[in-house]
Amino acid sequence: MSVATAAADRSVCSPLPVLGRDVRVPLVTGGEVDYAALDYAASAPALQRVWDDVAAYAPYYGSVHRGAGYLSQLSTDLFENSRRTVAEFLGCRADDQVVFTRSTTDSLNLLAAALPQGTRVFVFETEHHASLLPWEQRADVEVTYLNAPRTPLQAVDALEKALAEREPYGPALVCVTGASNVTGELWPVRELAAAAHAHGARIVLDAAQLVPHHPVDLAELDADWVAFSGHKLYAPFGSGVLAGRADWLREAAPYLAGGGASRKVTRRVSGEGACGVDVEWHTTAARHEAGSPNVIGAYAIASACQALSEAGFPALIAREQELIERVRAGLAEVPEVQVLSLFGADAARVGVLSFVVEGWNSSHFAAALSAEYGIGVRDGLFCAHPLVRTLLGSEPQDPGECGAPEAAPGERSLNAIRVSFGVGTPDEHVDRFVRAVRELVTDGARWNYRTEDGRCVPARSAG
Amino acid sequence: MSVATAAADRSVCSPLPVLGRDVRVPLVTGGEVDYAALDYAASAPALQRVWDDVAAYAPYYGSVHRGAGYLSQLSTDLFENSRRTVAEFLGCRADDQVVFTRSTTDSLNLLAAALPQGTRVFVFETEHHASLLPWEQRADVEVTYLNAPRTPLQAVDALEKALAEREPYGPALVCVTGASNVTGELWPVRELAAAAHAHGARIVLDAAQLVPHHPVDLAELDADWVAFSGHKLYAPFGSGVLAGRADWLREAAPYLAGGGASRKVTRRVSGEGACGVDVEWHTTAARHEAGSPNVIGAYAIASACQALSEAGFPALIAREQELIERVRAGLAEVPEVQVLSLFGADAARVGVLSFVVEGWNSSHFAAALSAEYGIGVRDGLFCAHPLVRTLLGSEPQDPGECGAPEAAPGERSLNAIRVSFGVGTPDEHVDRFVRAVRELVTDGARWNYRTEDGRCVPARSAG
Repeated sequence: MSVATAAADRSVCSPLPVLGRDVRVPLVTGGEVDYAALDYAASAPALQRVWDDVAAYAPYYGSVHRGAGYLSQLSTDLFENSRRTVAEFLGCRADDQVVFTRSTTDSLNLLAAALPQGTRVFVFETEHHASLLPWEQRADVEVTYLNAPRTPLQAVDALEKALAEREPYGPALVCVTGASNVTGELWPVRELAAAAHAHGARIVLDAAQLVPHHPVDLAELDADWVAFSGHKLYAPFGSGVLAGRADWLREAAPYLAGGGASRKVTRRVSGEGACGVDVEWHTTAARHEAGSPNVIGAYAIASACQALSEAGFPALIAREQELIERVRAGLAEVPEVQVLSLFGADAARVGVLSFVVEGWNSSHFAAALSAEYGIGVRDGLFCAHPLVRTLLGSEPQDPGECGAPEAAPGERSLNAIRVSFGVGTPDEHVDRFVRAVRELVTDGARWNYRTEDGRCVPARSAG
Repeated sequence: MSVATAAADRSVCSPLPVLGRDVRVPLVTGGEVDYAALDYAASAPALQRVWDDVAAYAPYYGSVHRGAGYLSQLSTDLFENSRRTVAEFLGCRADDQVVFTRSTTDSLNLLAAALPQGTRVFVFETEHHASLLPWEQRADVEVTYLNAPRTPLQAVDALEKALAEREPYGPALVCVTGASNVTGELWPVRELAAAAHAHGARIVLDAAQLVPHHPVDLAELDADWVAFSGHKLYAPFGSGVLAGRADWLREAAPYLAGGGASRKVTRRVSGEGACGVDVEWHTTAARHEAGSPNVIGAYAIASACQALSEAGFPALIAREQELIERVRAGLAEVPEVQVLSLFGADAARVGVLSFVVEGWNSSHFAAALSAEYGIGVRDGLFCAHPLVRTLLGSEPQDPGECGAPEAAPGERSLNAIRVSFGVGTPDEHVDRFVRAVRELVTDGARWNYRTEDGRCVPARSAG
């Protein structure tokens, strides 16, 4: 979409109200400023609507599936209606299941545990660790890691080749992100799904970064499963979703063993007494939801789905694309800034961009954005170590996961800076960010920074 | 404690304010009434204090362990401080770990996954399914199911015998509840822990029903681990805890594979490109907490721990014991009521009692308590099928897990009714419950009930 079109659509969509929009934070340089939350790709603020829904429900909270009282029945209905809302939001087919989990990571670990014996898994090395690492936990599952593609077409070709060459030609799963958590670039999900199916494989979409920004329709994409997290979808109450094909889920051992997943438990009695238990497990989504459901978390996700649907993705996307253009145009004016990209500058993307700044340690830069401008971004390897190292052309160092390697300020960084935003982001945050990058590069930081307990913190005024 | 002592202590402790205390529900007989939430053992209402803390924090929500911004640092500190608060509340030893999970079920599944190869597990058949079922999911773990004891001493003796007889004398784990979710009776945890340790075994305490009512001190009990849920501890935000010995946890494979648990991920490169990934996992609690932490859930639990500590367990226990006495005395006056018990009428217990009513289907009775009195209890087998069947002397039927078997009103039930309460329960709820039981038994229900979609619902007026 061109900027002109986006600007025209713009009038129909202001930022959606989110919690924290009035939070003021102190600046190391004195005074305070509205906090600019530009780390949506890690954890997005709650939509005000989600919070209001949760707050309205909270006094009616009761046990789900487990009680005879009015509030239990209300809570059970709310939970199961939330499941239906999510199914509708995701374009689920009639026989799909929606399992409430605790996060994308949890959803993909669940799917990994549910794979038929001996499934072959195909995954690009560019994935987030949540999509990269669960599969090898299964001793009987062989994982093929595909090299980082440099165009969407290369991705499809590489996948087709790998799938065609697999031996034996048994059950296979492709796991791919919808939008990269590092570059924000969209992956050709529909084409990859077609390739997977053409070769007798299934596909799961890691939509953690896609679903807050774009409609995801399982039937339309012809994808088998989708996984995402509430905390990136403006609903940070400890819940996530795995939705899709019921068959593998129904046939798998329950993800957690306990109440709620078990339909009937009986003792096996020998002469001496109890010698074992026989369990009949549910075959619905409950099979993988043992324990009391997180009804607030599930309802929060459903509320977010409804809020986004009602606001309308076309208008939300138009507005986000305009913000992306502002950031891109702003960063393009600073020659020291290198934006990280797999698919090139013109690739379609969501509001997630990572970059490095020549002559700057990324942790130092991010700390200065926070301390001197009240802007919250993320620095590090973004739980996608192989991808970030590929993009930086760097060798493995020894950073903490998701953290910053220690490095002296001024030294070139081995990690990157990520800016990300979404439906709650006002123009001013993005504009302040662009201005701050320019000022820091041009004038330098006004304070010195040092590393303390793994954090880069202001040490003293540089003035 | 005698009733007289409890009454004396009483003045120091009113019910703690909880959400939902003003909720009105309609009665099938007309009008409406304050909802009496008497299903705390399934899901307790949130403490007002917990809600207020969560609401105050929510605008400051940010990514934990993952961002450079002010709110990320604040959220990270809040999360790690919550861990410390929970550790202190539980009397953790210096080298214990506190892992945030999503529930007791999740905590015990995590511990099951972390057992050393070939561990023998010893568990009474009286446990909740969350404590009964996770162990056999490990193919290499043999589980010994111990018969229901009829005194605490029998429990200790049976455990000692079983542990002593085990062959080979390798790693062993005992899993035992602190307070039964069916009878509310306290188990002799300290004595069982001593027995376990005397025989070279370890012990995990399922404190789901204990921790909302009693102090739990790991060091003082000399227990190795404790597991509990936020939603029974007045903090229903999708979180739970496993706390205790670090060694087995540190040596085990990560519970979930993903970001946050992984410290460093590198490609293994062959001639053709990526051929695998090498992962260095954290050895702290983060090892088992992959994915973005549920910071709101963790903070809610910490807030509840603080609220209970500040109110003071002696006063809370004194008040709860008085409520228990009221219920017991009230039910004792109705000869048709049989209270379920393993250890006898005088056993120490928390505010959880299950019973059956002669001539009544339990689901029918529970439905009438809800529809005609606005009282929410639970009917069913309480996710402890073997125990409830042992107590009822009944054979396995085919009820839904955690639900009510269909049975015609008037027929004697194969399941039970459970009433449970806690720090937020006003006297009136308990008094109304006792009166309602008496009236239903004496006068019968005023409506007829039928089963619809697995629920027992009012059909028409019996008048």
